[in-house]
Amino acid sequence: MTTLLRVDASLRLDGSVSRALADSAEAAWKAEHPDGVVVRRDLGQYPLPATAWPTLVAAKFGTESADLAEARALAEELAAEIKNADAVLLAVPLYNFGIAQHVKAWIDLLLIDPELVYGPSPIAGRPAILTLARGGGYSPGAPKHGWDHATPYLERIFGDVFGMNVRIAAAELTLASVTPGMEQLIDASKVSEAEAHAAAEKHGTVVARELTANAA
Amino acid sequence: MTTLLRVDASLRLDGSVSRALADSAEAAWKAEHPDGVVVRRDLGQYPLPATAWPTLVAAKFGTESADLAEARALAEELAAEIKNADAVLLAVPLYNFGIAQHVKAWIDLLLIDPELVYGPSPIAGRPAILTLARGGGYSPGAPKHGWDHATPYLERIFGDVFGMNVRIAAAELTLASVTPGMEQLIDASKVSEAEAHAAAEKHGTVVARELTANAA
Repeated sequence: MTTLLRVDASLRLDGSVSRALADSAEAAWKAEHPDGVVVRRDLGQYPLPATAWPTLVAAKFGTESADLAEARALAEELAAEIKNADAVLLAVPLYNFGIAQHVKAWIDLLLIDPELVYGPSPIAGRPAILTLARGGGYSPGAPKHGWDHATPYLERIFGDVFGMNVRIAAAELTLASVTPGMEQLIDASKVSEAEAHAAAEKHGTVVARELTANAA
Repeated sequence: MTTLLRVDASLRLDGSVSRALADSAEAAWKAEHPDGVVVRRDLGQYPLPATAWPTLVAAKFGTESADLAEARALAEELAAEIKNADAVLLAVPLYNFGIAQHVKAWIDLLLIDPELVYGPSPIAGRPAILTLARGGGYSPGAPKHGWDHATPYLERIFGDVFGMNVRIAAAELTLASVTPGMEQLIDASKVSEAEAHAAAEKHGTVVARELTANAA
């Protein structure tokens, strides 16, 4: 039986493009693994306590606070969650040109685990699908090309640090239809969203089939 | 009378290199402006509530929660704090190859202010000194060159978004003396720290003199 860890980070449920893209990837994965288990972690709806990581850092430098045991248990739970997953599906919107603070809080807690930081990474070689949503345009040629500081960071952590095999499905201009002045970009946003859904579906299928092949 | 906003982000007091570098910059600034006011915001010791920004985002999308007024007041206080400063001194360590979650929480709240996001930025052209500490080596030639994802993000926000004139003083290898396996880098770390203090002092002096010249 295969396990997919799905992590959502959008603060929104209704209208969230990153969640919708992850739904496409998950459905494609499920079609190949009808008995597969999807473990869910919703950082957007249920953010992790922001105090947990600072508590663990303070302990490293010799100051133990009352909530240390709780913070340790949480870090261990999160590390086990990702280590026990055959694949990870991570749905993240770009917030203020950078990584969402609640996603960084999750990554900080994962990196408490020495195995995940220093290796040999127990999840190296496993697949990670990132479904990303960006309100504006950040592609080559756009005025804000290079302003997406979240994607390179996610690739660094999941690709370089964890050694996972990262696949990305990203929709751009997702705020075009609700932002005054972006009306002329609505058509382009629909194209981008459709392409991202197709990519998310494809990634879901490919990753699922890889897992089947590896298990055989 | 001139005002310097000093923002600290290290989780540590004792042994914090970013704080020590900011002390050097502040002392140099103070030497030029003995009557200047230093306003302090310590994100490391007193993190902002992580719920504030999600509350404001939810309100934008139509869901008003009980702590909305409080979140709004906090965002306004932070925006006023930076707008009222003639110069900003920001001391930030690199945490897990990226921006500290509690610094991102502060930036997210600042960017609630439409003036700071869309401009014309009321703080454009003002000086910002960043004193940065990195535990490892990230310079050209180092195996982890390019792994510092915090500095480019801070330059993006303070330089490109706010339009401030950014000066950086960064110390590298700051964890060499306390990390097994990094012993051979201790000498290089001392050189880096000394150079960073010299740069921080210089930036403090130059920024202070610019303010004097502008006021004349």
